[in-house]
Amino acid sequence: MPYAVNLADIQAAADRIGPHVHRSPVLTSRTLDGWAGRRLFFKCELFQRGGAFKIRGALNAVLQLSEAAAARGVITHSSGNHGAALALAAGIRGIPVTVVVPRGAPAVKRAAIEGYGATIVDCAPGQAARQATCDRICAETGATWIPSYDHPHVIAGQGTIALEFVEQAELDTMIVPIGGGGMISGIALALAELRPGLPVFAAEPAGADDAARSKAAGRLIPQEAPATIADGLRTSLGGHTWPVVRDHVAAVHTVSEDQIRAAMRHIWERLKVVAEPSAAVGLAVALSSEFRERVEAERVGIVLCGGNVDLDALPW
Amino acid sequence: MPYAVNLADIQAAADRIGPHVHRSPVLTSRTLDGWAGRRLFFKCELFQRGGAFKIRGALNAVLQLSEAAAARGVITHSSGNHGAALALAAGIRGIPVTVVVPRGAPAVKRAAIEGYGATIVDCAPGQAARQATCDRICAETGATWIPSYDHPHVIAGQGTIALEFVEQAELDTMIVPIGGGGMISGIALALAELRPGLPVFAAEPAGADDAARSKAAGRLIPQEAPATIADGLRTSLGGHTWPVVRDHVAAVHTVSEDQIRAAMRHIWERLKVVAEPSAAVGLAVALSSEFRERVEAERVGIVLCGGNVDLDALPW
Repeated sequence: MPYAVNLADIQAAADRIGPHVHRSPVLTSRTLDGWAGRRLFFKCELFQRGGAFKIRGALNAVLQLSEAAAARGVITHSSGNHGAALALAAGIRGIPVTVVVPRGAPAVKRAAIEGYGATIVDCAPGQAARQATCDRICAETGATWIPSYDHPHVIAGQGTIALEFVEQAELDTMIVPIGGGGMISGIALALAELRPGLPVFAAEPAGADDAARSKAAGRLIPQEAPATIADGLRTSLGGHTWPVVRDHVAAVHTVSEDQIRAAMRHIWERLKVVAEPSAAVGLAVALSSEFRERVEAERVGIVLCGGNVDLDALPW
Repeated sequence: MPYAVNLADIQAAADRIGPHVHRSPVLTSRTLDGWAGRRLFFKCELFQRGGAFKIRGALNAVLQLSEAAAARGVITHSSGNHGAALALAAGIRGIPVTVVVPRGAPAVKRAAIEGYGATIVDCAPGQAARQATCDRICAETGATWIPSYDHPHVIAGQGTIALEFVEQAELDTMIVPIGGGGMISGIALALAELRPGLPVFAAEPAGADDAARSKAAGRLIPQEAPATIADGLRTSLGGHTWPVVRDHVAAVHTVSEDQIRAAMRHIWERLKVVAEPSAAVGLAVALSSEFRERVEAERVGIVLCGGNVDLDALPW
């Protein structure tokens, strides 16, 4: 199999996690349709358990552990939604969970990780420190590391979004935020078999545009020094996700911080839902002149991936 | 008929407005259930057209005007959601609409009224100035005044919330915010026939507690000098709504500004929806020790009446 997962894996994931996750609703707004010049459908994963889509992938991984491995617990490093999701997933299976959290992570996300019952271990910011701390605890405890996106079970779990979305709305295309690429890889691989010919576009902050640069160069270029309020999209593509982005994502559209901020506000004011900055990137693309001029599509699906925001530090 | 409307009026209103309004969804949260010590069901009228339940009553009134009256247009005075709703309702019927807006009204609500195509007439703050301006324009133009709550057609329209809510969730009781009493009157009159024995509680800011004081005194005591962030709940009960509140509302529970602020934040953080302060009053009551101690009910319905908030002036 050339890619991390196929449609059958994603359908199996849907059966596995189905009893524990929400089928998130799809919202629309006449005003936003008018601005975009077409019909927009918003898949509201911000209503998902834990406030983001991440529970899908985390739970799909946790539920596939052997009894012996599960008993030793799971671990991840995360500054955000994946940490909360893994804590929630481990709680559902009733196994121990440790989350390595870099200092400086958003307070609201840290509180959520703790609230779902994880043991939190602090570490210095930066990918190297996070991984080293994680590896050390794995060695000590025998816990299984569940990465936040670059893992077949995680990718298959996130792909279940696509199975629901195409049942809930008739779509010509889909816009999906891209950080590490776990969500868009799962979605693109599901659609490649389920709706071949339905193009998937990636929405990326210009301040963390490794996917756009990788796609242009034809090789994986890691993200260094990301600068964006979309804290869920600062990560680099990985070995499992890059080939899918390379082959199954139609194009990567980047947007500015101002575009993200404006789109986030539109979502709050018009859809009346609390979307985090990372979730606003899809609408920012749909409203951009670049997308409107280059992409022909009447009915556009947009994934609002999460709603975990610090209400004391809004970006306007 | 002793009261403004009966169940048949409300069912007729539902048929009349049904093609034009949303059947708003009902959301739940395990965390909030835990805090309240029972199951809570939130009827999300903040997703309603215009961002609040008000379109139900305004449209039910506008659609019952004669052709001749409709041609002369409609008018109201409103600092908020009713003005936007009447503008929207008039647009649906294609007739002229004027909204008298007191200076100092929230910018976001004023913008919405304009955005829906109403002619805005400014006036001084205060009920007397609003009514005088409204009366003058009525005399000049022959427009029909559609008041924001104390009108049988408006009350019947708001009552349609109850018809949907009891279909969407099995409920033991309902908590409804009270300002002028249009919404709770319609709901209480619908339930009096449809679910006799299902008690309806009013949720009121302590800073605008005319309903609580009226209920205690057994006579209508108008609100003077309201002081609350719940800008939709500052009005007094009226001649049509007071008898219903007196006879068909089980009790009025008041909450402090701090309780309203905290509940509003819980709704944003846990339900991930943008509720305005007036919409948070119901949850504030459900979480209060007074309600928890005095009211026995396993399944509580709460109406989140609107979501029109100025994102630049959040109350925390």
